[in-house]
Amino acid sequence: MEQRKPSESIVIMTELVLPNDTNLFGNLMGGRLMYWMDIAAALSASKHCNAPVVTASVDNISFESPIKLGNVVHIEAMITRAFKTSMEIHLKVWGEDLTHQYRYQSNEAYYTFVALDPNRKPRPVPALVPETPEEKELFEGALRRRQLRLILGGKMKPHDATELKALFNV
Amino acid sequence: MEQRKPSESIVIMTELVLPNDTNLFGNLMGGRLMYWMDIAAALSASKHCNAPVVTASVDNISFESPIKLGNVVHIEAMITRAFKTSMEIHLKVWGEDLTHQYRYQSNEAYYTFVALDPNRKPRPVPALVPETPEEKELFEGALRRRQLRLILGGKMKPHDATELKALFNV
Amino acid sequence: MEQRKPSESIVIMTELVLPNDTNLFGNLMGGRLMYWMDIAAALSASKHCNAPVVTASVDNISFESPIKLGNVVHIEAMITRAFKTSMEIHLKVWGEDLTHQYRYQSNEAYYTFVALDPNRKPRPVPALVPETPEEKELFEGALRRRQLRLILGGKMKPHDATELKALFNV
Amino acid sequence: MEQRKPSESIVIMTELVLPNDTNLFGNLMGGRLMYWMDIAAALSASKHCNAPVVTASVDNISFESPIKLGNVVHIEAMITRAFKTSMEIHLKVWGEDLTHQYRYQSNEAYYTFVALDPNRKPRPVPALVPETPEEKELFEGALRRRQLRLILGGKMKPHDATELKALFNV
Amino acid sequence: MEQRKPSESIVIMTELVLPNDTNLFGNLMGGRLMYWMDIAAALSASKHCNAPVVTASVDNISFESPIKLGNVVHIEAMITRAFKTSMEIHLKVWGEDLTHQYRYQSNEAYYTFVALDPNRKPRPVPALVPETPEEKELFEGALRRRQLRLILGGKMKPHDATELKALFNV
Amino acid sequence: MEQRKPSESIVIMTELVLPNDTNLFGNLMGGRLMYWMDIAAALSASKHCNAPVVTASVDNISFESPIKLGNVVHIEAMITRAFKTSMEIHLKVWGEDLTHQYRYQSNEAYYTFVALDPNRKPRPVPALVPETPEEKELFEGALRRRQLRLILGGKMKPHDATELKALFNV
Repeated sequence: MEQRKPSESIVIMTELVLPNDTNLFGNLMGGRLMYWMDIAAALSASKHCNAPVVTASVDNISFESPIKLGNVVHIEAMITRAFKTSMEIHLKVWGEDLTHQYRYQSNEAYYTFVALDPNRKPRPVPALVPETPEEKELFEGALRRRQLRLILGGKMKPHDATELKALFNV
Repeated sequence: MEQRKPSESIVIMTELVLPNDTNLFGNLMGGRLMYWMDIAAALSASKHCNAPVVTASVDNISFESPIKLGNVVHIEAMITRAFKTSMEIHLKVWGEDLTHQYRYQSNEAYYTFVALDPNRKPRPVPALVPETPEEKELFEGALRRRQLRLILGGKMKPHDATELKALFNV
Repeated sequence: MEQRKPSESIVIMTELVLPNDTNLFGNLMGGRLMYWMDIAAALSASKHCNAPVVTASVDNISFESPIKLGNVVHIEAMITRAFKTSMEIHLKVWGEDLTHQYRYQSNEAYYTFVALDPNRKPRPVPALVPETPEEKELFEGALRRRQLRLILGGKMKPHDATELKALFNV
Repeated sequence: MEQRKPSESIVIMTELVLPNDTNLFGNLMGGRLMYWMDIAAALSASKHCNAPVVTASVDNISFESPIKLGNVVHIEAMITRAFKTSMEIHLKVWGEDLTHQYRYQSNEAYYTFVALDPNRKPRPVPALVPETPEEKELFEGALRRRQLRLILGGKMKPHDATELKALFNV
Repeated sequence: MEQRKPSESIVIMTELVLPNDTNLFGNLMGGRLMYWMDIAAALSASKHCNAPVVTASVDNISFESPIKLGNVVHIEAMITRAFKTSMEIHLKVWGEDLTHQYRYQSNEAYYTFVALDPNRKPRPVPALVPETPEEKELFEGALRRRQLRLILGGKMKPHDATELKALFNV
Repeated sequence: MEQRKPSESIVIMTELVLPNDTNLFGNLMGGRLMYWMDIAAALSASKHCNAPVVTASVDNISFESPIKLGNVVHIEAMITRAFKTSMEIHLKVWGEDLTHQYRYQSNEAYYTFVALDPNRKPRPVPALVPETPEEKELFEGALRRRQLRLILGGKMKPHDATELKALFNV
């Protein structure tokens, strides 16, 4: 099966924060941002495998700087690793105040998607071949994050998480 | 400062899956569900502390069974532990097909919120006193999940995560 | 045909009032509330009869206390009586200001739904057997409200509204 | 205080039924229609009194013919009577299938609005002087409908509803 | 084939400017207005030809007076000329501040639509016969505007635009 | 005053076509696309001048290939020329079917925006210095398009449109 590069699946999304996207402080609600991130990530995954995809899981997300009403949300999604039928997508999110020329990091996240065939069954996806040092680092880390996902989802025993154990210097 | 029970902050949300909430398979999009979960969790946290809150982080979420167009989404949010200025909220999500009387678990998740004062600075929240065995178990687990969040957010070294280490039987 | 209890069809809906739901005073628009009530009532009716339903009529609704931007809307829907192919649903609506721990009644209403078969023709629904005193009172009143609906809809002559006449002490 | 005619406050609204407005049968949901009717009626009331208004009550509504996805909704709102600080608005709703040149009546309704001053207190509205026979009939009937509203809202005893009693030929 | 009058296809749309429709100045965004104008024009075109239509082009639009949050948008759409399978629709847009009884022109525009058959191929539309002087003037001008559209779309050479040349007094 | 390059104001927007964005053929509605284009163009203009902007005008737009439900919309916005207080933005729009790896041009357009100061009065914007051949060509053409806009808006006599006359080889 065909091999692909991370750069072929980059998706750049730009959104304007409107009143209905905000809480009482006039800041973008976390849930609204996760909604946009899910779409950006789905498009990136779909671009890699040329098939419809569904969200399988979302890793821990921390919300650092709030994004204000009228500011811009930049989302960049890129595939980090392809498994048999699933793909991990890395997302970077910035806010930008165009008037004050101020751009700030909001958060980053990893979403996992599964490719489906017309019968809604998982189907194989092309392999991913990372090229740049950053892509390679994300590619390597994907195994560790996958083990954490499996443990947290109750599908792997911590004892078997060889990759993850390194994290705890065990 | 005042103490409160988990049962005082339960929020039950019921939503109908409409066409614009769905992907090409006619299933609820993951991002749309996370948007609703964020609001349910925010209301629960706000109920506990009687103050406005903002999303601080979201833990790993796995999406098990897809929820179909026209089905009902049930979200139940309850606080599991209050820290100094933050609160962990546990969410359980079910789908329901009313015509076929079929109710199925969709996913569960932990969201963390921070209470803010009028100057948008974190403010102390009431302590939480769990009562039932399930509430006590969620309360205990909250420390471990918090350490994982801090490690994943780069704010704690794995070596110091005493609670979490138990998870890996180290 | 099967009999069911009112408690089996209770639906609890919780919504947050967002900017686009409000008028120039920052209060929830009546029409937006009726939209949410319609969905809550439809889910309750559908839960009772396990079939798709359509709105047949809505009784008089008075809007008492306005619900503010950022406040919470609580809607509780429960079936009060099942007729041959239609069901009357009672709705109670509260607003809640989480910051000030203030919960206030907004309004109540009766919606009527008809169950449909796959050909979009009315189909019989299970009988309803009220249990608590409140359920029994709502069950009794349903006949009177139905006669009023039929008269207002031009489908019954006031002279024949035996149940309703009692209301006017005639 | 100034007097006005019903024709000065007519509002004509035209909406297209989009996917998210429909139920599983592809028909416009009742709640969505009530939302549009509320806005059309509010605009008509506001046009009469040149002040912001809020929904006070909605009379019984029967939904006759369903309006399909892709069809057009026509709403015509006109004031029928002005009381001291409130106004009754009559709404007529049609559906239209432009492809088949088929126009059908969907429902009609009466909404009541209250005019507010900048302190959100009810303020007097101009008197209404009906001109055509239809306007005069609607004007006359408004008293009777108002009594029914007051009785149903628990603010008038049926015994005192002199106008309404005529309806029951008592 | 049947002939029709412009007055048979008039569509009047009335919308209320809600928070999410506005920019940071509290004024209706141009793109939101073009969205409503597109729907009003599509309904007018569809009314003329009794077939589904798709937007083919939009002529230059200038936005004169901004329309404020809470104000009303009035859109009037009317067909000006029918070509073989396409129709030109003229739109007039006003804003209205109901409280200050102030009605102001916002902009006007010409949209062009194509009628489609069930296979999504262009299909012939009825001829249009203008009646009033204003309708006749719009009908005459339609040829000139069409040439401009074809030139701007690269489908006609300026030299062949005999109608349009008159505009430049050549 | 400062000078800027076109490349500094590029905005890339990616949107997924959802059910509510489509007409009865399952294709993206023209008005919905113009809404997204307006936001992309406003962000680009705002990026150039670091001030809030409002839509002043939109030039002729032709809709070539329809974009289908579930396909992706790519919008690229870039400033072409800055005048005293206004800016012309060029937009290119593609559709993309990720499953079939098929990317197609949908349309292109020119939007004009005016920068506003806090009193909502037009304010000067930085000059634009085009660099690449394509940027220079767009920069040159901007004068001609501006004259056409002024003529079509009734603010310039065709006889004075020296730039535009060249178009007609007069």
